[in-house]
Amino acid sequence: MKITRLYAVIPLALAAALASAAVAQDAVVGRSMTAEYATLEAAQNAANGMAGPRTVPGRSIPVPNTASRELQVSIAAPYRVPNWNADPKSPEEWKELVNKLASASAAAQVGIREKLGVTLEPTLIGGVKAFILSPKVIPAVNQNRLLVHVHGGGYVYNPGEAGTGEATLMAAYGGFKVISFDYRMPPDYPYPAAMDDAMAVWKAALGLQNPRNMAIFGTSTGGGMTLAMILRAKQEGLPLPAAIAPGTPWSDLTETGDTYKTNEWLDNVLVSYNGYLSRAAQLYANGRDLKDPMISPIYGDFTGFPPAILTSGTRDLFLSLTVLTHRKLRRAGVEAELQVFEGMSHAQYNFDPYAPETKETFGEIARFFDKHLGR
Amino acid sequence: MKITRLYAVIPLALAAALASAAVAQDAVVGRSMTAEYATLEAAQNAANGMAGPRTVPGRSIPVPNTASRELQVSIAAPYRVPNWNADPKSPEEWKELVNKLASASAAAQVGIREKLGVTLEPTLIGGVKAFILSPKVIPAVNQNRLLVHVHGGGYVYNPGEAGTGEATLMAAYGGFKVISFDYRMPPDYPYPAAMDDAMAVWKAALGLQNPRNMAIFGTSTGGGMTLAMILRAKQEGLPLPAAIAPGTPWSDLTETGDTYKTNEWLDNVLVSYNGYLSRAAQLYANGRDLKDPMISPIYGDFTGFPPAILTSGTRDLFLSLTVLTHRKLRRAGVEAELQVFEGMSHAQYNFDPYAPETKETFGEIARFFDKHLGR
Repeated sequence: MKITRLYAVIPLALAAALASAAVAQDAVVGRSMTAEYATLEAAQNAANGMAGPRTVPGRSIPVPNTASRELQVSIAAPYRVPNWNADPKSPEEWKELVNKLASASAAAQVGIREKLGVTLEPTLIGGVKAFILSPKVIPAVNQNRLLVHVHGGGYVYNPGEAGTGEATLMAAYGGFKVISFDYRMPPDYPYPAAMDDAMAVWKAALGLQNPRNMAIFGTSTGGGMTLAMILRAKQEGLPLPAAIAPGTPWSDLTETGDTYKTNEWLDNVLVSYNGYLSRAAQLYANGRDLKDPMISPIYGDFTGFPPAILTSGTRDLFLSLTVLTHRKLRRAGVEAELQVFEGMSHAQYNFDPYAPETKETFGEIARFFDKHLGR
Repeated sequence: MKITRLYAVIPLALAAALASAAVAQDAVVGRSMTAEYATLEAAQNAANGMAGPRTVPGRSIPVPNTASRELQVSIAAPYRVPNWNADPKSPEEWKELVNKLASASAAAQVGIREKLGVTLEPTLIGGVKAFILSPKVIPAVNQNRLLVHVHGGGYVYNPGEAGTGEATLMAAYGGFKVISFDYRMPPDYPYPAAMDDAMAVWKAALGLQNPRNMAIFGTSTGGGMTLAMILRAKQEGLPLPAAIAPGTPWSDLTETGDTYKTNEWLDNVLVSYNGYLSRAAQLYANGRDLKDPMISPIYGDFTGFPPAILTSGTRDLFLSLTVLTHRKLRRAGVEAELQVFEGMSHAQYNFDPYAPETKETFGEIARFFDKHLGR
């Protein structure tokens, strides 16, 4: 696959300064460190002395002490290889990798559900395989409410129970009944299969509950699909949910947005667009224009969207996609809230089910849903 | 001044990879670029293969096309030398630099006010030098409303009319009458002079208008002071305003927060904590603990704070301070909104008075104030 971005040139003077910076040792302080910094500062001022691209030096960035201890563990974690840079050479290789990762994820879900008191019930909704996640007790206020969850994974990862983790967290921390559906994915089923399944689920859900008492939510690909579902429901004249929660949504499958560059190599979940993401985008679009609003919903019309709450992190490769989506919703007159977590990479609020930031994320989404959903 | 942070070691293998990356040319595409990327990817995977700090490579980051053309100009702009890295060696040198920069800023304000139809009237409020900024027409709904503006500039920059730019924008785009006050600053007047002036202004403002019809706002140092004013008003048992808008607040004068590192050298306004910021922090605190909540309000108790709207950008050195402040407000049960702009460095919504993002920033703050202020 062709690498479409151009790797930019690092000025030689700066490269030399960076190489010399490597001589420094953590234990060296005071005068020599000051000299080190002065050299770096001079090189940076020189490299950024004219209008144009920004030159940033290579560096080692510590784990921030401003995140919870649990999140610090996620921030410190190494890149996820092969997840982030997977490059299978055939449909068979894709399926082998996806199934291997999904088995491990699904197995981990069992203990999490048990600990959080959430039950999982396999079902079919609108002919689509799905799971119903229920908390031990559904509060009275949520008895007539129903959430629809769209899992993430770049349109390739997380089939089956592997995709239910976020639904479990929402059921546990929000006290909601949640339908999480197992949409068809590439390489066997490219676009529009996933969206067709999503709309079949939404139509069936409309027969189960009043749309004013329902919300749709999901992270990453699930956030992008949540937005695309609203675009398509508008197009098809279907009732809309009372609220949505697109978490760090993959609202643009092209490499568009500043943090695709600024947070590249810093986000330890997605790492770079040039990993599996660029390949998954092509697999899903299957020759279609990546800027089709049904594939990259940021190019759609957000007028009339339900109230939305968006979540991201300061290290998230999709921070730009999140804030661009938030701004576009606001410009369309939609009530839209934004929450951004310190030091967090892509979708990391779904990683440790017990981290304070995880509880805070779903607590805020639950509060937002409670405000907007009928009873 | 001692540089307190340790410049981290860049692994030699990575430094070598970076130096070799410098050989690439923008015009080279295809196979060699793929090889270049493969080398970088391998080096990055190796450098980030264990739990710990994150290693990021030096690189050139393009100006994003996802910001407005006007904001793109601000994003592309070179570092502001000597503003960001000023290191005056005496009080006289500080004053000479500050006055030189302030003269230029104040001069620029004349044309901006004219273009935006805002008038400036010097006055004294509570014995403090101040300016009243008024739009050409104050809408009926805002006739009995009054805003108090706290200017930014690291407690050293922007004395006099140089500090009124943001108040002009709020008057113009929000249709409010705004008091912007000229608090005393180091080197002559360290803490608590600025805060004493701020409280004198707030007490005097309470004699001019019902606090339910007032809001306090400001950016950077002005955002930090806005928060500290609420802490001190609580402490002194004074009425609180109906809303606040701390923009990218300097809520922690120590180098605490992940984006102090991750956005270092990327933010073209503040650039690095090790520039004038660290020196200004010491000048202001004048030997006091930088973590005193009246100096770094993030260490204070936010319970009972008025509704708040916070603004930042994805390249902002203070993005972490903004989101940490937002989260702390939310955890204290305060209604708090967050808006983050694509590609924006620190406080850049105040830079081009006519950029769409500038109008959007103040439009959102005005909407928020309109929602929360009495009439």
